[in-house]
Amino acid sequence: MVTSTLEPTTSHSATTPASAAATDGVDVAALGKALDGRWWQVRRAARDLASDPALQKIEGLPMAEHRERVLEQAKVLAARGVVHRAYPTELGGSDDPGGNLAGFEELAVLDPSLQIKGGVQWGLFGSAILHLGTAEHHRRWLPGALDLTLPGVFAMTEVGHGSDVASLATTATYDPATEEFVIHTPTTAARKEYLGNAALHGVAAVVFAQLITGGVNHGVHAFFVPVRETGPDGQLHLLPGVGASDDGLKGGLNGVDNGRLWFDHVRVPRTNLLSRYGDVAPDGTYSSPIASPGRRFFTMLGTLVQGRVSLSGAGVVVAKMALAIAISYGNQRRQFTGGDDREEVVLMDYQQHQRRLLPLLARTYAAAFAQHELLDRFHDVFSGAHDTDEDRQDLETLAAAAKPLNTWLALQTLQEAREASGGAGFMAENRLVGLRQDMDVYVTFEGDNNVLLQLVGKRLLTDYGRGLAKIDIAGAARYVAARAADMTLHRTPLRRAAQSIRDTGSRARSAGHLRAADTQRELLEDRVEAMVAEIATALRPARDASPAQAADLFNAHQHALIEAARAHAELLQWEAFTAALPTIRDERTREVLTTVRDLYGLTLIEQNLAWYLMNGRISAQRAKTVTSYVDRLLARLRPHAQDLVDAFGYGPEHLRATIATDVEAERQREAREYARRQRAAGLEPVNEKELRANAERAGAAAPAAG
Amino acid sequence: MVTSTLEPTTSHSATTPASAAATDGVDVAALGKALDGRWWQVRRAARDLASDPALQKIEGLPMAEHRERVLEQAKVLAARGVVHRAYPTELGGSDDPGGNLAGFEELAVLDPSLQIKGGVQWGLFGSAILHLGTAEHHRRWLPGALDLTLPGVFAMTEVGHGSDVASLATTATYDPATEEFVIHTPTTAARKEYLGNAALHGVAAVVFAQLITGGVNHGVHAFFVPVRETGPDGQLHLLPGVGASDDGLKGGLNGVDNGRLWFDHVRVPRTNLLSRYGDVAPDGTYSSPIASPGRRFFTMLGTLVQGRVSLSGAGVVVAKMALAIAISYGNQRRQFTGGDDREEVVLMDYQQHQRRLLPLLARTYAAAFAQHELLDRFHDVFSGAHDTDEDRQDLETLAAAAKPLNTWLALQTLQEAREASGGAGFMAENRLVGLRQDMDVYVTFEGDNNVLLQLVGKRLLTDYGRGLAKIDIAGAARYVAARAADMTLHRTPLRRAAQSIRDTGSRARSAGHLRAADTQRELLEDRVEAMVAEIATALRPARDASPAQAADLFNAHQHALIEAARAHAELLQWEAFTAALPTIRDERTREVLTTVRDLYGLTLIEQNLAWYLMNGRISAQRAKTVTSYVDRLLARLRPHAQDLVDAFGYGPEHLRATIATDVEAERQREAREYARRQRAAGLEPVNEKELRANAERAGAAAPAAG
Repeated sequence: MVTSTLEPTTSHSATTPASAAATDGVDVAALGKALDGRWWQVRRAARDLASDPALQKIEGLPMAEHRERVLEQAKVLAARGVVHRAYPTELGGSDDPGGNLAGFEELAVLDPSLQIKGGVQWGLFGSAILHLGTAEHHRRWLPGALDLTLPGVFAMTEVGHGSDVASLATTATYDPATEEFVIHTPTTAARKEYLGNAALHGVAAVVFAQLITGGVNHGVHAFFVPVRETGPDGQLHLLPGVGASDDGLKGGLNGVDNGRLWFDHVRVPRTNLLSRYGDVAPDGTYSSPIASPGRRFFTMLGTLVQGRVSLSGAGVVVAKMALAIAISYGNQRRQFTGGDDREEVVLMDYQQHQRRLLPLLARTYAAAFAQHELLDRFHDVFSGAHDTDEDRQDLETLAAAAKPLNTWLALQTLQEAREASGGAGFMAENRLVGLRQDMDVYVTFEGDNNVLLQLVGKRLLTDYGRGLAKIDIAGAARYVAARAADMTLHRTPLRRAAQSIRDTGSRARSAGHLRAADTQRELLEDRVEAMVAEIATALRPARDASPAQAADLFNAHQHALIEAARAHAELLQWEAFTAALPTIRDERTREVLTTVRDLYGLTLIEQNLAWYLMNGRISAQRAKTVTSYVDRLLARLRPHAQDLVDAFGYGPEHLRATIATDVEAERQREAREYARRQRAAGLEPVNEKELRANAERAGAAAPAAG
Repeated sequence: MVTSTLEPTTSHSATTPASAAATDGVDVAALGKALDGRWWQVRRAARDLASDPALQKIEGLPMAEHRERVLEQAKVLAARGVVHRAYPTELGGSDDPGGNLAGFEELAVLDPSLQIKGGVQWGLFGSAILHLGTAEHHRRWLPGALDLTLPGVFAMTEVGHGSDVASLATTATYDPATEEFVIHTPTTAARKEYLGNAALHGVAAVVFAQLITGGVNHGVHAFFVPVRETGPDGQLHLLPGVGASDDGLKGGLNGVDNGRLWFDHVRVPRTNLLSRYGDVAPDGTYSSPIASPGRRFFTMLGTLVQGRVSLSGAGVVVAKMALAIAISYGNQRRQFTGGDDREEVVLMDYQQHQRRLLPLLARTYAAAFAQHELLDRFHDVFSGAHDTDEDRQDLETLAAAAKPLNTWLALQTLQEAREASGGAGFMAENRLVGLRQDMDVYVTFEGDNNVLLQLVGKRLLTDYGRGLAKIDIAGAARYVAARAADMTLHRTPLRRAAQSIRDTGSRARSAGHLRAADTQRELLEDRVEAMVAEIATALRPARDASPAQAADLFNAHQHALIEAARAHAELLQWEAFTAALPTIRDERTREVLTTVRDLYGLTLIEQNLAWYLMNGRISAQRAKTVTSYVDRLLARLRPHAQDLVDAFGYGPEHLRATIATDVEAERQREAREYARRQRAAGLEPVNEKELRANAERAGAAAPAAG
């Protein structure tokens, strides 16, 4: 982990001194470095690209112009060599997969469309060639993929199948006569859909299709398929047999030219099969280093996990930006007078405003620290340091847990920030609405969030039942049921420590107890374990059921399983946050940050309080202290809110939101100065209300006159 | 209430017969008419305007073109006379304020920008003249306001003050020498902001300003102020002293030309004061039919309540549209195979999909029926049938409760619908993202949702303490505290029936009990009452506190107060839904609808289960049945989901979403037909997986061969 230094970080708030370490507040610089983590230099370099206006998003640019601008921006990134870190050194990269993603995550600061355009080119298209192809494939296509002379399409999703990749319907049928694969789209549903670079810029595509040779379907494999070439007119034209159409306007990300691709018996050489995990000999004989078709499929898909890891990180980046904007504004904006009836109250001083923003701030901190751990794990696997099958499966589960939480966090935080900023939040110039439009699709692409959480849930059941392999839903239900009967007898009993907490009758003592990290951990862990055990037990009858009945039984617990997965993912973030605390050297900073962690833990417990009560983990008496304790934490953190968002390190060049500058404070100064001058000149009118009140008082003092 | 008839309604689903009444399902036509309520004809006529493509929104139109298109559309509405129902008959209206809003609500189906453009012109600008002006004002300006030859601006909000209207800083100082008001914007913060029609089209403005005469400020009044005139070039130009700027791109509603206006000592005749509630004589003497400045202010603002009422209804309309789109798609779209491993499962059959959409469907039904009651109440007040001060205050509270719930409902439903529709949901052609962008600002304009809920909360405290007048926060806290001590002694004890329910130990019986309407009502009512009582008690010490301390105490319970208001608003919707059930004549339909109501009630109880447990209203044992009972209701309603959205009456011309047609089902038919032909022709490849499984079985059957 990164430790604190005295190096200054960007601090832009009008209300906070540049060096917050000098105040009674947190050490903003040191905290900022901890938040930026192991690859802090890469991260800062990436977001500081935004100081170049040519790399900034222009809100409201027409779609066609936005697409061309983003393509040009992507070329700049390629030319500067800032997006190739994941690739081998001999190809111009730096064999640094973790650092690559850290930098990639920050590209959302420039323009999420640019991030995704880059993600398509270098994270999907290029990565598929790198991970699914051979050295020869790398030699042929990676240089063009890297320098963007070969803009590529990642053609996996079809109109008919998104989440269910195994059911893709595009076929790649081997023809031994010509030693070619015939790429074919048999139906409308089999058309490739939502593909970046497909509408306009893509020259080649990595196409995922069912590999058929000798009448046998060996499952989904990836093929390199040229789709466009430059014609005599200097324009790109589709190659014969290739169809394409434009998805047109989307809810956001309109700088990416998404579209559809389809193929009418398009022939590619045998050697265009990206053949690392499955090859076809000239005579049509199929071979693979992985015997099991199921394991082979998941291994191939598993190489593409970086998409999920990096979207998870992008969610954290954008949540940070949203909070920096809304809290900076909330610290200046005043509305309604307080108790003294003169000075208006700063929005952040309202309890409801704190309730709306500070728990999201705490979640964002937890998510940021958890993302560091995820990136470490990703780096370990993809650098080869720890790259067993188990490591890869763990990584996939961690990514499947983090991506839903953090992409939803981004949307929720952007929306709360936008509403908390009132009408100003709705103006495009304040960035929140544009970012929300762009981030919206992050929750369903690269794995729909609900489908991903279900994957996590299945893994939890697997671990609970030990050794359950990745099998179909019905099989999983039967398997779990078969195991659950045994496991409940032999398994280490779930810790019940939380349950045995004695209620003292003193709310204060109870609340103090809830603040203990061990109590929070026990409550959060216990809930995950008990939920999984309950589902496994409920699935037990599936053992003797028909496949259809077993599927119905599984479906009847789908919601509970997804909730268990969510609880597990939240626990991971809580643990990562807690693990990061000792790395903060400055005592006062660590103290404040511990309060932030407590707020995260306590709000999780508050959200699920009914579960803790129903299952006897918390008494009604103690439960009543949770909300008031959260309120106390909010009040305690409120003075540090600005420092906590300043530590994110996003300055005016990153946020580019008018309301996050000191424009509001300046307007108030102007208004106060005007009022002062009016009063001094005796021009301030008397209020009718005051006149009446005075008259009434005078009347009351002289009743005899009536 | 409307009763059922045999009149057919629009039914567009590919999977449901046009006359659902003929099946075992609900009577779609009769339910549709009940949902459209008292002004069903107006409602249908309004949304059927969408069959004219010229009145439809074009997604992605550049802002400038969108603004001109919406202006032209508004002129069409004016020419057709469909937007003047609220105005007096002698002015071309029909003295039908309720019907007017019912029709207005449905304009969201055409384009929310058109709805808001119309809302600015006829709901705000024209209404202010109607309600705050005199007969002479009506005669001079309403004809132009109605036929749109006088496009108007409603200039209330300022840069510095949105929710806090009383603190507006624009001044209107009377000059008896010339018998004019001088309208002036003293500071940047006092500029009028976010005003529709301000950037381009507005010719006059109703400007809210502090009325100052003879050195006395009589508070905020409205003035008719010309702002633009047509120049010799045929273009509109700002009048001398008037400044304007363009808000530019927004998160949505880009067909409305929002902007800022400011005034540099602009003079208007004395008679331009809209003087119904306050007038200035030529010599500068102020007079008003309402002595109290506070009551006068709230009376003036109260005339504008229709904005909140109609936005509440617009939220319901859009939630209906979103559900119709997502559920129609979810009833066709298939993904992943089920237990039999062949046929893929329809999305709506997944429990999680039901969990995501059906509770929102239930909330939307409740909101629709509650909106009918709100419109009735609005009509009673504004038609003069029941128009006491108390009626108006009740109406304002009801509107302040409904608008937050229903505008948030629209956003949440649009987002869940978009995510539930995957990538397709993100395409502009499927409407969900565009509608969400447009509806976003509904949650903060015409009263920020949180501020409105706080208003409701204060009213609840007032009612609890009886007779508390509208006073400042600190005062309210002191007053409530002073009263609470007495009231708790004398007040009718809160019903504790729910608490005395005996737990039988049988989950089934407990669940059945929760389904009883009386149980639901008791639980929901009891929670509101107990929350309010608890807050009032907590505010008691404010009685002896300083204003600042009292304000702090109030602030420490702000979140709880807002939550109490939300609970109250939800209860109102539950009650309206329940009251509507007996009006449904068809027994089967009523039965299904009762289940929808139960789902609404039970999900409310589920969301707040911790409260019921902590406060001893539900035992832990019974609480455990709530979620499983909700799951059962979901399964019971699932077969009726299509009927329930078809009953909303939104056909293809209203939804205009590709995925809500039968395009997905058609693609599946094509794919199935292709597979059938392949099999018939013997062209279907064998799966490697099956080959291996067969080989293993063969090997196991003949171990001797090994």
